[in-house]
Amino acid sequence: MTERCVGDLAVQFGCEVQGDPETRVSRVATLANADGASLAFLANPSYRVQLEATAAGAVVVAEADADAVPSTAIVAADPYLTYARMAGVLYPSPAAQPGIGPGAQVDPTASVDPSAEIGPNAVIGAGSVIAAHVVIGAGTVVGRHSTIGEASRLAPNVTIMDDVVMGVRCVVHSGAVIGSDGFGIARGPAGWERVPQVGGVIIGDDVDVGASTSIDRGAIEPTRIGNGVKLDNQIQIGHNTVIGEHTVMAGMVGIAGSTTIGANCAFGGNSGTTGHLSIADGVIITARCTVTGDIDAPGTFGGVFPHEDIRSHQRNVARYRQLDKLARRLSALEKRLKDNENTE
Amino acid sequence: MTERCVGDLAVQFGCEVQGDPETRVSRVATLANADGASLAFLANPSYRVQLEATAAGAVVVAEADADAVPSTAIVAADPYLTYARMAGVLYPSPAAQPGIGPGAQVDPTASVDPSAEIGPNAVIGAGSVIAAHVVIGAGTVVGRHSTIGEASRLAPNVTIMDDVVMGVRCVVHSGAVIGSDGFGIARGPAGWERVPQVGGVIIGDDVDVGASTSIDRGAIEPTRIGNGVKLDNQIQIGHNTVIGEHTVMAGMVGIAGSTTIGANCAFGGNSGTTGHLSIADGVIITARCTVTGDIDAPGTFGGVFPHEDIRSHQRNVARYRQLDKLARRLSALEKRLKDNENTE
Amino acid sequence: MTERCVGDLAVQFGCEVQGDPETRVSRVATLANADGASLAFLANPSYRVQLEATAAGAVVVAEADADAVPSTAIVAADPYLTYARMAGVLYPSPAAQPGIGPGAQVDPTASVDPSAEIGPNAVIGAGSVIAAHVVIGAGTVVGRHSTIGEASRLAPNVTIMDDVVMGVRCVVHSGAVIGSDGFGIARGPAGWERVPQVGGVIIGDDVDVGASTSIDRGAIEPTRIGNGVKLDNQIQIGHNTVIGEHTVMAGMVGIAGSTTIGANCAFGGNSGTTGHLSIADGVIITARCTVTGDIDAPGTFGGVFPHEDIRSHQRNVARYRQLDKLARRLSALEKRLKDNENTE
Repeated sequence: MTERCVGDLAVQFGCEVQGDPETRVSRVATLANADGASLAFLANPSYRVQLEATAAGAVVVAEADADAVPSTAIVAADPYLTYARMAGVLYPSPAAQPGIGPGAQVDPTASVDPSAEIGPNAVIGAGSVIAAHVVIGAGTVVGRHSTIGEASRLAPNVTIMDDVVMGVRCVVHSGAVIGSDGFGIARGPAGWERVPQVGGVIIGDDVDVGASTSIDRGAIEPTRIGNGVKLDNQIQIGHNTVIGEHTVMAGMVGIAGSTTIGANCAFGGNSGTTGHLSIADGVIITARCTVTGDIDAPGTFGGVFPHEDIRSHQRNVARYRQLDKLARRLSALEKRLKDNENTE
Repeated sequence: MTERCVGDLAVQFGCEVQGDPETRVSRVATLANADGASLAFLANPSYRVQLEATAAGAVVVAEADADAVPSTAIVAADPYLTYARMAGVLYPSPAAQPGIGPGAQVDPTASVDPSAEIGPNAVIGAGSVIAAHVVIGAGTVVGRHSTIGEASRLAPNVTIMDDVVMGVRCVVHSGAVIGSDGFGIARGPAGWERVPQVGGVIIGDDVDVGASTSIDRGAIEPTRIGNGVKLDNQIQIGHNTVIGEHTVMAGMVGIAGSTTIGANCAFGGNSGTTGHLSIADGVIITARCTVTGDIDAPGTFGGVFPHEDIRSHQRNVARYRQLDKLARRLSALEKRLKDNENTE
Repeated sequence: MTERCVGDLAVQFGCEVQGDPETRVSRVATLANADGASLAFLANPSYRVQLEATAAGAVVVAEADADAVPSTAIVAADPYLTYARMAGVLYPSPAAQPGIGPGAQVDPTASVDPSAEIGPNAVIGAGSVIAAHVVIGAGTVVGRHSTIGEASRLAPNVTIMDDVVMGVRCVVHSGAVIGSDGFGIARGPAGWERVPQVGGVIIGDDVDVGASTSIDRGAIEPTRIGNGVKLDNQIQIGHNTVIGEHTVMAGMVGIAGSTTIGANCAFGGNSGTTGHLSIADGVIITARCTVTGDIDAPGTFGGVFPHEDIRSHQRNVARYRQLDKLARRLSALEKRLKDNENTE
C-alpha cells in the first residue's frame, strides 16, 4: 500500500480536482465502507444514493456527480477507468524478485533472464525461454520449447505445455493449462485412436487467462489468442480456435474446436459455440447462449430461458413439448374458420 | 480400517439394535455387495428390494424397515445421516503427520503450527499462518498473508492465493483455486485495462470446496463463503459473491460477480446466476437453471429443457422460433371468431 | 520430427501410392499451408476445394479424390484414421526417460519401475505402484495405494488421489484430478455432514482424461471408466458413475453421480445428465443437451436453443412464458368454433 496525494493522482491521469488536492489516500474502498484515507468511485448510477453519505477521502466521479461528493471529487471523463488506473498506483503489482526460488528446477537448456523471478518448486523445461521481468509462480510448470514474454506473470500452479509462445505483459491465473493436446480422435477398428496434436499455441500481448481455464494446442496449426484478449475462469478453448484482439469472455465459456472469433467480441458467462464456426468482429453473445452457426455481422445474440417457479416451468416445458401439435391445431382452426366464413 | 462392534456404534450414535449387538463390522458396503463384515444402510426406498437378500453384517435402517433386515438392524431416525457418522468411525480421516515434508518450501515469515502437516513439495508464502492439525497436501501452494484455520485439510495441488482467511475444519480438494483475481476490466482507449482486485476471500468454518472449483477474491471488499457451505467440483464463484451459511452447490455451478446468496439454499448441477443479484434464504435452484433476476422468497425454481429425440427437438425448436407469430395468429383468430359471432 | 518415405508409410498402413513413392515427408500440414516436405490429408469434403492447389509433398485421400492430388496421393479407405497413424510415426510420443527427476519425492513404500520417468518435483505417495514405461509429469502428485499401468502418461500438474487403479496406455492431461471425494453430504441438526467416500476409481486401458477434468471416487464402490473411453477437458464425473467402453465426451460435460452410461456413446460439449440414470449403449447426446431420465435404446437426443438475435429471443422467451395460456386459449377457441358450427 502506498499513500498518494489526490492532486498528484489527478495530474497523472488528467483529471480535475474539486475540493482539497492535498487529500491523501492510501487504499480503495466502496462508497459505503470508505474512510478518510480511502479512494472510492461512482460509475454505476445505482450507487448514486450512497454518494452523499460517503466518508471517502476522495471519490472519482463524472462531472455531473461532482457537486454531490461530500469530500474531494476527482472529476474524470470515465470514472471507472480512471479509478482502475489510480487503484493500480495504490496497489502496484509486486515487482519480480530476480532469481530462482528454492526447489525450482530449471532445465540446463532453458534460458531464464536474470531479472525474472522463478518461484519455489517451479519447473522450467528444456529449451524454454523466460524473458525479462517475468514472474513464474510457485509450483508452476513450463514445458519444452515455450516462450514467456517480457513482464508476463504466471500465478502459482499454472501449467504451460510445450510449444507455447506467449507475448508480453500477460497474466495467467492458477490452475490454467495452456497447450494441452486438442481433442482429436479417429475411430479405428479396435476403438478410438489419438490424432497427434502438433500445432502449438500463440498468445498475444496483454492477454489474461483466468483460473483453471484451458487452451488446447492446435492439431496442425497453432491455436491463436489475439492481443488484449481477456479470459475469465474455467473457460475451455478447443484446438485450432482463433480469437481476435480485445475479445473478452466471462467464466465457463466453451469454444469448440476450429472456430474463428473476431476482434472486440464479448461472450457472457457459460455461453459457447459449436465447432468450425466463424464469428464476426464486434459480436456480443449473452450468458448461457449457444452459438450453433456462423455470425457474419456485429450484433447481440441470446438464447437462455430465465428461471421460473418450478411449477410454471414444468407446465411450460410440457406445453413446449406439444408446440408442434399446437401449431398444427392453430392452422387447422384457421382453415376451419375460413371455410365457415366462405360458406356463410 | 477399524473393526467396530455394532452395539458400541449404536450407543455412540443413539440407535437401537435389533439382532446381535456383538456383530463386528470393519467396512461399509452396498446392500447388494455386502458381506458379514460389512455395514450397509437403506435410505432410498428404491433399494428396499435388496434388503431381504443382503449379506451385510448390519444394516442401518428406519424403524419401519427393521424387521426386514436378515441380520442385525441398527434402527435410526435418519438412517443416511447415522450411516455417514458410523462410516466416519470406520474410515477416520488420517490424522495430520506433524512436520514439513521433503521438498516443501516454507517462507521464513510464515507461521506453521508444530502439529500441522506440510506435504512434500508444498509451498507456504510470506506471512501466512497454518493453524494446528492442518493438513497441506503435496504440491499445494499457500500464498502470502493467508490463514488456514485449525484442522482444515487441503488436498494435493490446491492453490490458495494471497489474503485468504479460511476457518476451521474446512476441506479443499485438488485443483481448487481460492483467491485468484476477480474478472475486473475497464475499457481504455487502447484496449481493456485491469482493475486491481484487492479484496481477499473469507471462508467460514466447515466449508468444503470441490476439485477444480475457483473462488475469486473481491474487487474491493472480500468474497465471503459462510459457515457450513458445501461446494462440489468445478464451480466458479465470481468476485464479491456472498454465500450464506449451509448453502450447497452441485458441480459446475457458476455464480457471476457481486451476487448475494442466502443461507440454506441449494443449487443443482451447472445452474448459475447472472451478476449483481440477491437471492433469499432457502431457495432451491434445479439443475442447469439460469437465475437472471432477484429471488426474494424461498421457493424452487427451474429452467431447463430435458433431452428429447433429436427429430422432435428440431421440430419443436423450429416452432419455438415461430412462437411470436403463432401467438399473433391465435389473437387474430380470436378476434375474427368474435367478429363472426357478433355479426351472426 | 522424423523424415519418412511415403512408400514406406503406405506399406506400413496398407495403402496404395499414386505418384512418387520416394517422396519424403517430415511434418504434417493443412492443405492450404503445406510444402513439399509436408504430409496433408483430405477427410472433410468442405476442404476439397483446397486439394488441387496444395503444395503438400503427399496427401492422404480416399480413392475418389486421388486423381485430384497434384503431387503424391496416399490412397486410404479411411483417410483421417490413416493420417492419424502416419502423423503418429512422424511425431512419436517421446519415450520415457527412466529415472527420478530432480526434486521428485517418492515415498519409500512406493514402487516405481526402473523404466518409468518421474518428472521434476513430482510426488509419489505411500504404497503406490508406477509400472514400466510410465511418464509422470513435473509437479504431478500420485497419492496413496494407487496404480498407474504400463506406458500410461500423466502430464505435469495432474493429481491422482488415493485408491485409483489406472490401466495401460492411458493419457491424463494437466490439471486433471482423479479420485477426489464424491459430493456426499447428509443433513444433520447443525448443518451438512460429510459422508465418507471410500470407493476408489477404476480406469481401464487406453483411456484419455482431458485437462482439468475431474473424476470423483465412489461413495462405497468404485467409479468406473471403461477401456478406450476418451474424455475431453473440464469434464466432471460424479461419484459412482460407470462409463462403458469407447464412450467419448467433449469438453465440459457433467455427469452427476450414480449414473451408468453404456458403451460407444458420444456426448457433445457441455451436455450433461442428472443423477441415478441409466443410458444404453450407442446413445448420442448433442451439445448442451440435459439428460433427465433413462435412455433405454440407441438414438440421438438434443435439447438446446440455438442463438438468435437478442430482440427476437426476448420476444420468444416472453411468449414461451405464456405457452400454457396460449394453449388454453387455443383449446377454448376450438371449442367455441365447434359450438358455433353446431348451432349454425
